[in-house]
Amino acid sequence: MLAAWVDGAPASTISLDDRGLHYGDGLFETIGASGGHARFLEAHLARLMRGCAALSIPAPDTALLRFEVQRAAAAAAHVLVKLIVTRGAALERGYAFTGGEVPRRIVCAYLWPEGPDGERAPARAAMAELRTGRPLLAGIKHLNRLEQVMARQEARQRDLDEVILCNDEGFVTGGSMTNVFALVDGRLVTPPAGQCAVAGVVRAQLLGTAGRLGITTGELSLAPQVLQSAQALWLTNVRVGLWPVASFGQRVFAAHEWTPRLQGALRDAAMEAL
Amino acid sequence: MLAAWVDGAPASTISLDDRGLHYGDGLFETIGASGGHARFLEAHLARLMRGCAALSIPAPDTALLRFEVQRAAAAAAHVLVKLIVTRGAALERGYAFTGGEVPRRIVCAYLWPEGPDGERAPARAAMAELRTGRPLLAGIKHLNRLEQVMARQEARQRDLDEVILCNDEGFVTGGSMTNVFALVDGRLVTPPAGQCAVAGVVRAQLLGTAGRLGITTGELSLAPQVLQSAQALWLTNVRVGLWPVASFGQRVFAAHEWTPRLQGALRDAAMEAL
Repeated sequence: MLAAWVDGAPASTISLDDRGLHYGDGLFETIGASGGHARFLEAHLARLMRGCAALSIPAPDTALLRFEVQRAAAAAAHVLVKLIVTRGAALERGYAFTGGEVPRRIVCAYLWPEGPDGERAPARAAMAELRTGRPLLAGIKHLNRLEQVMARQEARQRDLDEVILCNDEGFVTGGSMTNVFALVDGRLVTPPAGQCAVAGVVRAQLLGTAGRLGITTGELSLAPQVLQSAQALWLTNVRVGLWPVASFGQRVFAAHEWTPRLQGALRDAAMEAL
Repeated sequence: MLAAWVDGAPASTISLDDRGLHYGDGLFETIGASGGHARFLEAHLARLMRGCAALSIPAPDTALLRFEVQRAAAAAAHVLVKLIVTRGAALERGYAFTGGEVPRRIVCAYLWPEGPDGERAPARAAMAELRTGRPLLAGIKHLNRLEQVMARQEARQRDLDEVILCNDEGFVTGGSMTNVFALVDGRLVTPPAGQCAVAGVVRAQLLGTAGRLGITTGELSLAPQVLQSAQALWLTNVRVGLWPVASFGQRVFAAHEWTPRLQGALRDAAMEAL
């Protein structure tokens, strides 16, 4: 890297609470610059503005961005300028944003060794074996969390505690920050680990402890209608533990006798694990 | 945040070149801790190790992680410990990793106000209106780039310059770091913007300049077989400009007369844009 600036000032670090680091909650542009001129700058800034709108990130001032990119463009004869805009420092813990965050501008200048007119041998290409989406990242707790960030925003806007998400095949993957359990035909069921957004630690504990209480458990692909018609629903994660669901859309659930039993069993499991 | 450590030392910042910031190239765990004890710590560490394996991130020493999480767990009576492991500082510009990066450990301690046994009203939940995957993030240049990171790794391992990716419906979304163009029945075609991983700036420029040269252009959903049988293929991005494809799997392409014409037109467009 030739040089870098954060919010206009020369910098080599960024604060640890930046939502760009925690969730990938931000946008970027890679801009070619030659002879001190940033190429297609207006098209890059226009796309960045569209991205800000899509993610509800307040758009930084374009005149300021233009100035900062041009300054980085002057770092060498041929430069690749990376402009990152994150939602800024987190104001609260967790995926949800408050809307009060102050977006952060990060500008990095890299050498563009071959420049815009460099020769390169024609490309050897092939179809990727890698399948994007679910199979690659299902279950693992990676830092690419924009879907969860936007889902938490939907929950906040609809005055809900949680929203439940589906995969492309229409099966439930879990909540925006929780795994989901349903009581269906006397069994405590949850989507298979490979279909979960995250294979939760509390989820695994609950499957084990429920089994020891004599409750039949199972992993099952769940359509939203199955949640709708379940006898009870629960949400799990580290922070909330086991959280009973009071309502799922129009459906209202009464308190269920399993809730205190399962919560007690989870408490015991946490003690045993010490 | 109560306290934070980077690679074991108290810290409030992280270096700007961390791949966690640039691509979300890393993993995390949120661990509940009560009375100084991290709950279900071994399960958290086991999932983290699975994530490291899935992303080819060298696994940090678990004894070290255990020590650092326990230290953070002592920051208050009830703590949520966020453990982040990124692939570390970038050794090269771009999505690809070299394998020589040194993973970085970030540990943040947050107050867990209600603790593990806190009361909370049952949850109000509903199905999300948000659709995960393509519709939410297609086209915008966000910081969630793990798919591109892993696709670049595949290209490197297979000794290719680029691999082409498909969406769940089997249509081409583009290369791991490029947009793709094909010459099909005399037309220069590329996937629709809404089906692209990123709606590229050079892609948009090429559509415009090719049109001005009298070449018929179009946006078209492309199956991989269409690329296989095309008369020519090109890749575009800011760094490489317009890159002719020499081979696509078994198929070999001869140099095409449009390549220098289109490259010249793109060069002129960049000049006009100044």
